Amino acid sequence: MDSPAPRPGVVELLGVLSYLELRAFSELATGAELAPTMRERARMAKHAATEYAHYERLVARLESFGQDPFEAMHGFVPAIEDFHRRTAPSTWLEVLVKAYVGDGIAQDFYREVAAYVDAPTRELVTMVTESQNDELVPIVRGAIAADSTVGGRLALWGRRLVGEALTAAQRVVADNEGLGSVLVGGPQGSGADLAELGRMFARLTEAHTVRMGRLGLSA
Amino acid sequence: MDSPAPRPGVVELLGVLSYLELRAFSELATGAELAPTMRERARMAKHAATEYAHYERLVARLESFGQDPFEAMHGFVPAIEDFHRRTAPSTWLEVLVKAYVGDGIAQDFYREVAAYVDAPTRELVTMVTESQNDELVPIVRGAIAADSTVGGRLALWGRRLVGEALTAAQRVVADNEGLGSVLVGGPQGSGADLAELGRMFARLTEAHTVRMGRLGLSA
Repeated sequence: MDSPAPRPGVVELLGVLSYLELRAFSELATGAELAPTMRERARMAKHAATEYAHYERLVARLESFGQDPFEAMHGFVPAIEDFHRRTAPSTWLEVLVKAYVGDGIAQDFYREVAAYVDAPTRELVTMVTESQNDELVPIVRGAIAADSTVGGRLALWGRRLVGEALTAAQRVVADNEGLGSVLVGGPQGSGADLAELGRMFARLTEAHTVRMGRLGLSA
Repeated sequence: MDSPAPRPGVVELLGVLSYLELRAFSELATGAELAPTMRERARMAKHAATEYAHYERLVARLESFGQDPFEAMHGFVPAIEDFHRRTAPSTWLEVLVKAYVGDGIAQDFYREVAAYVDAPTRELVTMVTESQNDELVPIVRGAIAADSTVGGRLALWGRRLVGEALTAAQRVVADNEGLGSVLVGGPQGSGADLAELGRMFARLTEAHTVRMGRLGLSA
């Protein structure tokens, strides 16, 4: 242990973020298999490798607290696995929209929770939100412009993604006392209260609507 | 272009290595999905991320020659895709043996071809052969010790892997004049002759036999 003991809930928070990143790695890497060109495949592989690098940084932080990262991740596996199982893309455009929308929701969520953690953890969480996904926007817009039926199907897909993501997020917060306490204010916490948590989910949904609009899709 | 023009065949060589690494990334990342534990899944994801990092270095070298990396890779896609299609693992142990044996053959091949290229390319090719796969050995040995039928099935699997790998390698060399010339000695080349190429394949097979023995499998 080379770091002071973390505030309550921080280990759980790093645990859920670690597994989100490890799972995002798998999702993008397997999604890359659906790419129509080698160039797009390589670009998606790069996103996957970036998520893996984020995962490694989060795990290193957990280890600096003397924590076993796999124990810290363990409780979050079912909710995150369920989310991905229920939103498995079947086309390349679904892969792209999931990468853009899913990464966007995750990054908004990271920024929200960064407010409730110690400064070094906050710095780390902010660092792993560096996005490179804006290049996906013109590809999706182009596909919609080329085929008018695409927009309707992808809009439905986006709604399903955000619905499942919010379900998973609520399940994660409800099931894990430590994580709940860091967000809604435990004994030593300066976290948000339950009403603030509701407003956070509302902000995440609003940001999602903006992102869908950027893709040319109704949310 | 910030590097002098490459010797004939070097662009092709970097092209085939780039696509091998990009494809190895996908193979290991999707293989990780079969991992029985999160720890093993994360370890396989790390291997995949390492292959992606190798791919990026090779691509950067191609770009320093003013080459489009996707054009350089293009001709090698069918042979490499066929290899992976014909050796798709269906169990976690098959994933592990393919990772260990496949990576071993690839690394031996890289070291062999490094002899025929310019010094900076050689340095790069040698650098991307850094292996971290030895940790797979006790896992495979343990599985064989626990179930006597496993060894026989994995030995067959190893034979199939090396057979398909050598078929793919011979197809790659035969189909690509440039690559053939760097290996067997083109107009300006100091490459090996055809007999030397045969001996190279023999050395690759011998090294494979040693590796299979390390796993506790007959080659």
